Amino acid sequence: MDTMNYTLLCDFYELTMGNGYFQTGMGDQICYFDVFFRDVPDGGGFAIAAGLQQVVEYIQHLSFTEEDISYLRGKGGFDETFLDYLRTFHFTGDIWAVPEGTPIFPREPILTVRAPAIQAQFIETYLLLSLNHQSLIATKSNRVVRAAQGRPVSEFGSRRAQGPSGALLGARASYLAGCAGTACTMADKLYGSPAGGTMAHSWIQMFPDEYTAFKTYCQVYPHNAVLLVDTYNVLQSGVPNAIKAFQEVLLPRGITHCGIRLDSGDLTYLSRKARKMLDDAGLTDCKIVASNSLDEYIIRDLLLQGARIDAFGVGERLITSKSEPVFGGVYKLAAVEDAGGNIVPKIKISENPAKITIPHFKKVYRLFARESGKAIADLICLHNEVLDDSKPLELFDPDATWKRKVVSDFVARPLLAPIFLGGRLVYDLPSMEESRAYCKAQIDTLWEEVKRFEYPHTYYVDLSQTLWDIKQELLEQNG
Amino acid sequence: MDTMNYTLLCDFYELTMGNGYFQTGMGDQICYFDVFFRDVPDGGGFAIAAGLQQVVEYIQHLSFTEEDISYLRGKGGFDETFLDYLRTFHFTGDIWAVPEGTPIFPREPILTVRAPAIQAQFIETYLLLSLNHQSLIATKSNRVVRAAQGRPVSEFGSRRAQGPSGALLGARASYLAGCAGTACTMADKLYGSPAGGTMAHSWIQMFPDEYTAFKTYCQVYPHNAVLLVDTYNVLQSGVPNAIKAFQEVLLPRGITHCGIRLDSGDLTYLSRKARKMLDDAGLTDCKIVASNSLDEYIIRDLLLQGARIDAFGVGERLITSKSEPVFGGVYKLAAVEDAGGNIVPKIKISENPAKITIPHFKKVYRLFARESGKAIADLICLHNEVLDDSKPLELFDPDATWKRKVVSDFVARPLLAPIFLGGRLVYDLPSMEESRAYCKAQIDTLWEEVKRFEYPHTYYVDLSQTLWDIKQELLEQNG
Repeated sequence: MDTMNYTLLCDFYELTMGNGYFQTGMGDQICYFDVFFRDVPDGGGFAIAAGLQQVVEYIQHLSFTEEDISYLRGKGGFDETFLDYLRTFHFTGDIWAVPEGTPIFPREPILTVRAPAIQAQFIETYLLLSLNHQSLIATKSNRVVRAAQGRPVSEFGSRRAQGPSGALLGARASYLAGCAGTACTMADKLYGSPAGGTMAHSWIQMFPDEYTAFKTYCQVYPHNAVLLVDTYNVLQSGVPNAIKAFQEVLLPRGITHCGIRLDSGDLTYLSRKARKMLDDAGLTDCKIVASNSLDEYIIRDLLLQGARIDAFGVGERLITSKSEPVFGGVYKLAAVEDAGGNIVPKIKISENPAKITIPHFKKVYRLFARESGKAIADLICLHNEVLDDSKPLELFDPDATWKRKVVSDFVARPLLAPIFLGGRLVYDLPSMEESRAYCKAQIDTLWEEVKRFEYPHTYYVDLSQTLWDIKQELLEQNG
Repeated sequence: MDTMNYTLLCDFYELTMGNGYFQTGMGDQICYFDVFFRDVPDGGGFAIAAGLQQVVEYIQHLSFTEEDISYLRGKGGFDETFLDYLRTFHFTGDIWAVPEGTPIFPREPILTVRAPAIQAQFIETYLLLSLNHQSLIATKSNRVVRAAQGRPVSEFGSRRAQGPSGALLGARASYLAGCAGTACTMADKLYGSPAGGTMAHSWIQMFPDEYTAFKTYCQVYPHNAVLLVDTYNVLQSGVPNAIKAFQEVLLPRGITHCGIRLDSGDLTYLSRKARKMLDDAGLTDCKIVASNSLDEYIIRDLLLQGARIDAFGVGERLITSKSEPVFGGVYKLAAVEDAGGNIVPKIKISENPAKITIPHFKKVYRLFARESGKAIADLICLHNEVLDDSKPLELFDPDATWKRKVVSDFVARPLLAPIFLGGRLVYDLPSMEESRAYCKAQIDTLWEEVKRFEYPHTYYVDLSQTLWDIKQELLEQNG
C-alpha cells in the first residue's frame, strides 16, 4: 500500500488546467493553496487531523509512467510538449501541515502548499482525499473512544468499509485517534494497530453443540479464549456453556483471564446478568466484550444504564463514520507570486460569508494558557508575523469584531510544521506510536466544554489584525 | 490495483478459527456459506450487485508471503504446522454468484461458497468488503442516474471518497450502474469510465479577470470549453463573460458545442436565467452542467422545478452514499458436508425472524413474464430442484404462508452463475461495457413500482415448498 503510485488519482481538470497553464506560460507561477474545512462532523467541537503520512508518500512517488502518458495522449486535447513535460514531472515546492493527531478547527489552514501552478493544482485531489478520509475516521473514532471512558475500543469494520483502503487506512486513523486495536490483520501488519479476534457464529455452528465449540476453542487458545455467547440464547445457553468450558479447561491450568462477547440483544441487560453469572462462578477476571452496531451515542447510553462491559468492538458506524460519512476539506487558492516574487493575496468571494476564503500566505499559532496548559485560541497570522507571547494579546472575532478578549500568560506555538521545502522532505515522520501519544496529549489540552458531543463551546479561531485588514481590503476591492 | 495481494485483509478471527479447525482436524470439512443482505439502502426497492470482479482477482491472488507468515508467527497462538500449511494456501473450492449489474433483493443468496472450512471462513471479510462497497455505490448511483431522466451524470467525488480505493472502485461501480463518466483520471485508465473535467475556481482566480480566464481556456480547448461561471457572480459576470468568450473564440471557428457549469446557488433559478441568456446570444448548443452537493432527491426536485440542466456532476453524496453509507451484506454458514458427503443444512436462529438464515445449499430462479419480459419474483430453491416453467407455479410468502399467488406464462432463469469450480475460474468475466449494458437491461425488467425512491412495492422473494419445509424442520429442532 505504501509504495502505490497514485499519480493518476487526480481529477481530470487538474490535467486540463495544467496543460492550459503550460500552454500559456503560466505553469511556473508560484501559487499558495490552503486545505481547510468548514464544519466539524457530527456537530462536534473539533476534528483530528490525519492522513499526512499518505500525502508524504504520494508526493514522493509522484511520477507519470510511459503508459500513463500514452493513456493521456489517447484522451486527446493535451499538447505533446506538455506530455513530454510530464515525463519528468515531480514535486519541487513547499508544504506545511499540522502533524497527524492535532485537534483542528474550522476555517484554519491545516496544510499549505507553495509550488509552481501546475504542481500545486495537480496534487489537489489526492491531498484532499487522504486528509478528508483519515481526519473523518480519526475524528469519529476519538468520539467513540471518549464515550467508552477508558475501556478499550477495537475497530471491527473492515467488511463494511468503502473499499480495501477504506478498511486499512480507516483502521490506521482509528488507532492514531485512540482505538486500542483492530480486527483487520493487514492493518496490524502495515500500521501496527494490534489485530485481535477469536470466533464467528460459524465456529459454534460447526460443532455438534455450543459447549463442544467453546471447550475446543479453550483447548486450542487457553490464553485467548473470548467466547461468542449469543448464537443460541445468551443467558440460558451461551454464558452457562462458557462458564463450564472455562472451569473445565482454563481453571485447572490456573488461567483466569478469559472473556465472553455479546453481539446482539439488550447489551445492558445481558451484560449485567452475565456479569453476575460469571462472578458467581468465581470468574471475576472474565471480561465482557460487546459489539453490534455501536457508536459513541449507544456506548454512552450503555454506560449510563449501568452496562457491565469491559471492551467494545465497533464496526460499520466507525469505519464509514456512518452518521456523517464526509469530511468537507477544501483546497483553495490563497495567493500567487508576481514576477518580482511579491506575494499577491487572492480571495474567493461568496454570498455565504462562511464560504469566503482567508487570503494570503499564512501561519497559525495555537495559544496555550501558561498555567493550565489548556488551549485558549488559534490565531491565523500573515506568514511573516511574529507573535510575542510575553505580552498580553487582544483577540477579536473576525465576523463580529466587537467581541474582544485580552489574553495573557500564554505560550504561542506554531501549528503547522514544514513538511517539504523545495521538493525535499524535511519532516521527520513520527512513528504511529508517537502520533498516537501526541494526539492523546493534544486532546488533553482542550477544555471539556470543547469536547462535548453535542453543543460544544466554539473554540476561538481568530485572525491577526494585519490579516483581517488585508481580507477587508480585498473584500472591498472585489465586492 | 488489480494485482494487489489482499490476503491479509482478513479479520483476525478468520485466522484463529482456521488454526483451530486445522488443529482439531476439521480444516477440510466442506462448508457452504451464503452472502446476502437484509435491507435495501435508502428504503429503495432493489439493490445492484457489484464488486465480483475484485472478488475474482482476490481469490486468484490468495497467497501468504514468507513475510506474512513471519508476521503471524510473531503474533503468537498459531501452530507451526498451521503456518506451514499457509505457505501453500490457495482456494480450491466453488463459488457461485450473481453477475455484476444484477438487481438483487433482500434475503436471497447473491454469492455462495462451497469450500473446505478454513478456506471458506478465511475469505469472508474481503468478499463482504468488495460486494458491500461496490453494491452500495452501484445502488446509489443508479438512483441518481434514474433521477436525472436520461441526462448524463458524472461521478465527481474522489476528493471526498473514503480512501483511494473508495474513489477508484466507487467510480467503477458508479459507471457500471449507469453514470456516464467520472472526474477521476485513474478510474478511466483502470476501469474505462470516461474521465472529464475542465476547470476549478482557481483557474479563474489565476487570471487578471474572469473574461481573460474564459477566453484563454477557449483558446486552449476550443472543443471542450465548459466554463465555470460562479466564481464571482453567475448572472452579472460569469454567464456574460462566457458568452463573450464563446462568441469571440469559438463561433468564428464554427464551434457551437460548449458549456457552462454552475457550482453554487439556486440551480433552478440560475439555470433558467442562464439558458435564456445563452439562447438569446444564439448559443443554443451550449450545455448547462450543474454540480454542488447533488443527490437523487435534489436532482428530482430541480427537474420538477423546471431547471434547465443538461448534465449533472455528483460528488460526495454519491461516492460515499452519504444518506446511507453502509451496505449490510453478511456471510452466513448454510450447510456442511458430513464424512459421507451428505449435505447437512445449518440455520442461525434469532429472536428477530428477519435475522433467521435460510439453510442448505441453494439456488435462485428469477421468473420473468413471458410476454412483457418483466421480473415477477425470485424463487429460492434447494440446489438440486428443477423448476418446470412450462407449468403454472404457486408462490407463497415464506413469512405469511396464506398469501399465495399462481404464476404462469413465465420463464425461469437461474440467477447465480458458477464462478469458481474446484478452485478454477470457470466464469468468463464480462467487460465493463458488457456489465453496464447488462445492468441497464436487467433494471428495465423491473416494474416502475419497484423502482420508486420511496415506498416501492416489495418484490417477491419466495422459498420453494421443499426449502420452506427444511427450514421449518430445523426451526422446530433448534427452537
